[in-house]
Amino acid sequence: MQTTMLQKTSEVKVLRDPIHSYIHVEYQVIWECINSSWMQRLRRIRQLGGAFMVYHTADHTRFGHSLGVYEIVRRMVTEIPDLANSLCEEDKVITMLAGLLHDVGHGPFSHAFEAVMAHSHEVYSCAIIETPGTEICDILESYEIGLAKKVADVIRHEYVNPICCQLVSSQLDADRMDYLLRDAYFTGTKYGEFDLERIFRVIRVEDERMVIKKTGVYAIENYIMARYHMYWQIYYHPVARSYEAMLELLFTRMKDLASHGKLPQEVLFLDHIFQDEMMDLEQYRCLDESTCIYAFHMLESCDDDILRDLAVRLLNRKLFEAIPYSEKKYKERKDALKKEGYQTRYYLHQDKVSQKPYTPYQEDRDDLSKAIFVRVEDGSCKELSQVSSIVHALVRLKNQQEGLIFYPGEVNQ
Amino acid sequence: MQTTMLQKTSEVKVLRDPIHSYIHVEYQVIWECINSSWMQRLRRIRQLGGAFMVYHTADHTRFGHSLGVYEIVRRMVTEIPDLANSLCEEDKVITMLAGLLHDVGHGPFSHAFEAVMAHSHEVYSCAIIETPGTEICDILESYEIGLAKKVADVIRHEYVNPICCQLVSSQLDADRMDYLLRDAYFTGTKYGEFDLERIFRVIRVEDERMVIKKTGVYAIENYIMARYHMYWQIYYHPVARSYEAMLELLFTRMKDLASHGKLPQEVLFLDHIFQDEMMDLEQYRCLDESTCIYAFHMLESCDDDILRDLAVRLLNRKLFEAIPYSEKKYKERKDALKKEGYQTRYYLHQDKVSQKPYTPYQEDRDDLSKAIFVRVEDGSCKELSQVSSIVHALVRLKNQQEGLIFYPGEVNQ
Amino acid sequence: MQTTMLQKTSEVKVLRDPIHSYIHVEYQVIWECINSSWMQRLRRIRQLGGAFMVYHTADHTRFGHSLGVYEIVRRMVTEIPDLANSLCEEDKVITMLAGLLHDVGHGPFSHAFEAVMAHSHEVYSCAIIETPGTEICDILESYEIGLAKKVADVIRHEYVNPICCQLVSSQLDADRMDYLLRDAYFTGTKYGEFDLERIFRVIRVEDERMVIKKTGVYAIENYIMARYHMYWQIYYHPVARSYEAMLELLFTRMKDLASHGKLPQEVLFLDHIFQDEMMDLEQYRCLDESTCIYAFHMLESCDDDILRDLAVRLLNRKLFEAIPYSEKKYKERKDALKKEGYQTRYYLHQDKVSQKPYTPYQEDRDDLSKAIFVRVEDGSCKELSQVSSIVHALVRLKNQQEGLIFYPGEVNQ
Amino acid sequence: MQTTMLQKTSEVKVLRDPIHSYIHVEYQVIWECINSSWMQRLRRIRQLGGAFMVYHTADHTRFGHSLGVYEIVRRMVTEIPDLANSLCEEDKVITMLAGLLHDVGHGPFSHAFEAVMAHSHEVYSCAIIETPGTEICDILESYEIGLAKKVADVIRHEYVNPICCQLVSSQLDADRMDYLLRDAYFTGTKYGEFDLERIFRVIRVEDERMVIKKTGVYAIENYIMARYHMYWQIYYHPVARSYEAMLELLFTRMKDLASHGKLPQEVLFLDHIFQDEMMDLEQYRCLDESTCIYAFHMLESCDDDILRDLAVRLLNRKLFEAIPYSEKKYKERKDALKKEGYQTRYYLHQDKVSQKPYTPYQEDRDDLSKAIFVRVEDGSCKELSQVSSIVHALVRLKNQQEGLIFYPGEVNQ
Repeated sequence: MQTTMLQKTSEVKVLRDPIHSYIHVEYQVIWECINSSWMQRLRRIRQLGGAFMVYHTADHTRFGHSLGVYEIVRRMVTEIPDLANSLCEEDKVITMLAGLLHDVGHGPFSHAFEAVMAHSHEVYSCAIIETPGTEICDILESYEIGLAKKVADVIRHEYVNPICCQLVSSQLDADRMDYLLRDAYFTGTKYGEFDLERIFRVIRVEDERMVIKKTGVYAIENYIMARYHMYWQIYYHPVARSYEAMLELLFTRMKDLASHGKLPQEVLFLDHIFQDEMMDLEQYRCLDESTCIYAFHMLESCDDDILRDLAVRLLNRKLFEAIPYSEKKYKERKDALKKEGYQTRYYLHQDKVSQKPYTPYQEDRDDLSKAIFVRVEDGSCKELSQVSSIVHALVRLKNQQEGLIFYPGEVNQ
Repeated sequence: MQTTMLQKTSEVKVLRDPIHSYIHVEYQVIWECINSSWMQRLRRIRQLGGAFMVYHTADHTRFGHSLGVYEIVRRMVTEIPDLANSLCEEDKVITMLAGLLHDVGHGPFSHAFEAVMAHSHEVYSCAIIETPGTEICDILESYEIGLAKKVADVIRHEYVNPICCQLVSSQLDADRMDYLLRDAYFTGTKYGEFDLERIFRVIRVEDERMVIKKTGVYAIENYIMARYHMYWQIYYHPVARSYEAMLELLFTRMKDLASHGKLPQEVLFLDHIFQDEMMDLEQYRCLDESTCIYAFHMLESCDDDILRDLAVRLLNRKLFEAIPYSEKKYKERKDALKKEGYQTRYYLHQDKVSQKPYTPYQEDRDDLSKAIFVRVEDGSCKELSQVSSIVHALVRLKNQQEGLIFYPGEVNQ
Repeated sequence: MQTTMLQKTSEVKVLRDPIHSYIHVEYQVIWECINSSWMQRLRRIRQLGGAFMVYHTADHTRFGHSLGVYEIVRRMVTEIPDLANSLCEEDKVITMLAGLLHDVGHGPFSHAFEAVMAHSHEVYSCAIIETPGTEICDILESYEIGLAKKVADVIRHEYVNPICCQLVSSQLDADRMDYLLRDAYFTGTKYGEFDLERIFRVIRVEDERMVIKKTGVYAIENYIMARYHMYWQIYYHPVARSYEAMLELLFTRMKDLASHGKLPQEVLFLDHIFQDEMMDLEQYRCLDESTCIYAFHMLESCDDDILRDLAVRLLNRKLFEAIPYSEKKYKERKDALKKEGYQTRYYLHQDKVSQKPYTPYQEDRDDLSKAIFVRVEDGSCKELSQVSSIVHALVRLKNQQEGLIFYPGEVNQ
Repeated sequence: MQTTMLQKTSEVKVLRDPIHSYIHVEYQVIWECINSSWMQRLRRIRQLGGAFMVYHTADHTRFGHSLGVYEIVRRMVTEIPDLANSLCEEDKVITMLAGLLHDVGHGPFSHAFEAVMAHSHEVYSCAIIETPGTEICDILESYEIGLAKKVADVIRHEYVNPICCQLVSSQLDADRMDYLLRDAYFTGTKYGEFDLERIFRVIRVEDERMVIKKTGVYAIENYIMARYHMYWQIYYHPVARSYEAMLELLFTRMKDLASHGKLPQEVLFLDHIFQDEMMDLEQYRCLDESTCIYAFHMLESCDDDILRDLAVRLLNRKLFEAIPYSEKKYKERKDALKKEGYQTRYYLHQDKVSQKPYTPYQEDRDDLSKAIFVRVEDGSCKELSQVSSIVHALVRLKNQQEGLIFYPGEVNQ
């Protein structure tokens, strides 16, 4: 038998998972990707940047999340009749692969790290998938010439079948569904819970995109509110953001020193990450959170006072204080820090997070396949916020913003 | 007000926890210990050595477990009337501290690492608590002179009040209760679940030790069976043991090289851990799983073929095969490996695990306060296996053993 | 020792409960009330009128709910520091009793039954508590003269301490908190879940009423959304309302016949419930859902065609069809039914349900202690919808209404 | 299209269920049976006789359980590859029907009621399924002549394909799997939880019967222990048994009076149930727990002192006291009761319950398809207790018995 992406494993492989009970794998190409060094590397990168500083059990990794996204895609294309019928088997496998691999390019600590990098994790994900010679690319191409590009196309929202893209990345995608449930479970909160089974039951396909049956609107509202609450209670928690702010300040300091060739000897092994060009992928593969944490340990005894201080604080959870942003307060803190001799470039940070619980589709601007449409009684499809009065109310909210200032708490005294 | 160990925090501090809903802290000394670098270090050491290789979500840490043990102790001494009444407040705080700190001396990957170390983690735990100058010791002594020794005494089962020792370490202790529930939650299995609330309700104090009310025997049987199943399904899972076997082989290779001064330059920073004397505690504090993982990355490009090979396997989950032990098979594998040029000292491992679900008390040998006694109808106390016919049957089982041989699967072919 | 309402039971009594783990009882007067025939009667009245016709496991009773409300009150007045400190022990016990007894006057099938009754269940509840000679009143008065009135005052929102009233009945009361969690559990849905523990942690007392700490607003939003979703997905489900509509039609038919002395002999034992005056309480005590179901069985073989037909449909779940209300459709159905010979008084029903997720406080109209206030940064208290933009958006929604028409589906054909 | 039992519903019907998330129905014949008056009647019969007197939320019904058994059968024959492959579609539907209908003949309060009845519920189940003219039989035969007998044959363990019988009734059947999980959920205990998904994964078919894969033995041990604990903690709880003992005493009194034509007028409508011949099925259909409860209300004001007293006690949960049985104590109580003027035939009861957690197969006695066999490494199958040392230990336990005496507690004083 010739090798194709449709080749099945000898028996269904299962991996126990608290969110989905089991992850089921029955295609050989998927099993090989899971066992690749690139996927295994995601075991060493946490799913939630700094949230484990607030929720002490949030140590779950991007590996588990990637499996979860894959499993949701697998169930959707198998169990939802309209999807099962409208996708060919190849497109199903390609979409499962895209779900599995969509985060493969993530670096350590996600956002803080990306802030100093020249390229986004999406760019790395596609590079890892498409560059001949990387393990992932070689696996994919060994099953079918051209498969790597197809998988990357789904991730880039450029694949020929828009449903595949929608399943992996849209306002109602497998990615969000998994991370809300998973992050809720591992933080021990209930905010992220919604009714996955019910959502599965109300999805239909109409004009080559997924839409929601009218009676499913409550389940979708529930999911959107879950997302809203997770953002403010977990992802945007001031303590998580403080940790991430400090990471960013430390990385900034390292980058500044590196640009002058003055990176302390103890962390010279990280020199390559502060270059502007894209990193060598083999080097990128070794870059995980363990490497960074080890670097912080090294910095504990380096000569640069700023790096040493920030590293010690990060390792021992001596986090910066967070206060609501105002221009006045920002200036006050800046002055106070300067007076005490702190370099504010590395000791003062502001961030501004904002989140709309739901972004309605705008015809001239948006990708139709990212929005949520509802099939109403007369058979026509309407954008969610025109059907749900709750969602309608939410989108009329002005963009909720919360800016914070982070700085060493000792200057308060 | 003079500082004492009874000093309360300004308001009760709470940490969200999926197992206990919240961890509640109301004593200042406990809060300070939690925030110490030693406890924060436990965030970087997983609770379950190699089990995350089987259960991909089992990334929970000894930090969370330590908080959980503390919380169970806190609830027991507060909510169980007999304990609340028979312990003075000082003993309650001391026991909570012992629960919190009992694992503070754990090194990375627990068992595999300990196998090549000269001293056990218990020895390190007590050293960290009692050595003047370590952060933990300084915190404890700042609240009350002599407190550090008292806490260590509880951990060593030498404290004057045996109930305190029993709460932290016995066949029905806060340690086991937390880890069974926690490991079940984070692996996504149900085997470890038992009825904690019910157990709380059937504990009584009799002659300075905890005993169980007769009607509580079913709840205890349930707990003992939970433990039995967790061992065989999780802790002793062949894949978890294979990972740990390989860790041990790699550490052994490093130790052998170190003893000849030939540790590869890339991992020279680990040289100190292979000495016979007890490690410097400050160095020990920096030793966490991130450091080891980083070392494995370094070994990926070192000159020693064995270390390089083992490190690559560990990082990418290319684990050794496991087969049931027999002398014959062991010899067969040994011969096959030798023939293929493998050094069997680093490529062949056998382990033998055994577990009795419950060990009955033997008068001439055992610490009375480690056994489980039941108060029967006439008011007398009997050892559990004399009351529960299920447990009686279990202890008559001969010690269940399962020996496995681990070796590189490619020699099978 | 003289008997007082503060008398403790010999040891804490516990009742296992899936929602609260255990219900804890430590006051003798509460234990006696639970064991009274009036409370035991609530075991025979379901919590959710017709919802068990949609959710086949929703057989939970008002007995369990009453225990749950009691338990939430007990925990709140014990575990929330501001409440524990600001209420005297007597007020705590009175409030627990009010929580336990607030639903004691419910008749079978709640709403459908109440629709044909001359008096509301609240009236019956207070009558049962305050009428000398009823078991409940006698128990209460035996512990303290005047206790019955105090308990009824809390239920009527007339008690001297407004916090007690607020705990039992307000927009954030123990009643709602229990029923949302309980109904979610027994229907198997997730919509009603919210974070009870978190809400407990953010409640403060200010000016003799409970308010919410600013950081708790997300938890409250979550609770309000839970309520909103439970209404539309469960309480207002068309099938549940169809069952209730049919019950109301059957009761109406019985009442009409009874008013002419023509109630069929088989159900003459129900004659007394269709009188205008308040029922004799002893007779009321025997009126539970079993009695009604038995009556339906009797009606299966009575001479009145309408009663017989409706009873058979109810027993066998041959429910009326439900369609959205419009004047036109209503008239159409009416005509069709008439044409087929149906008496529309008993075969056509419309209901109109509406629900605001949250009703903001209006100074000139509302009881201050029913609203939810938030203590903001400057220490002042603001009404919830002024603090939460989500809630603000919700209250600006026009009152969501959904009217349905119910009728026998066979006339469609 | 001709009607056959394989006819599908227009779309898959789903019923929300807390244990199985959803019950899925896709065959028309199954949907019709669920909607029959016989199945709807099971909504009025609780799953657990007297356990709701201990666990106040245990009001779940045989209707929900029957749906659950059906759903487990459906999943097993669909999702377990060996079963999916070895059964034809007809046999799958027949087995699902047998699972759905196996309890259709249950009367109110199960055991207590059956104790005074001339025929067991199994006899009624088969009669209801096979008697032409009953709604169930008519439905089945309308889909295929002879279907009713086939379904009854599965229930009687006489069907031609032993796997079908084994799925519905054996030591590892869908019936037990559902009730353990369901009863655990609705009582709020954890004892009954086991790993259903894991068990599904280790079932194989060998020689026309289901066997267990060797690696699945732990999951089976877990299930057997769950069953053991549920028996002692719930099904055999003294309070549940006291309620059932009193029911049996009351029914006995009614039967005695009925045999002399002296049944009180108030409950004459129950006269037919105390005859020796099998009840008319239409009358049996009206016999549910509501009817009995109503009868107890009637008895509250009847002339027979014994019936009146027992009914009042049952309605108000004034249960008999339970003490461990001994001949001596039994005699003591008997004498005491007589002295106080009680008729001991109606005021003294003893029961003796016993349970073996697992009964091993005995070749000369047992139905092979009821035992649990394990397929070991060499491919042969061994009886469970020969493979599991835990189970081996359990079966060597002598039959655990617990006899109790029940009597009115007031004679103690």
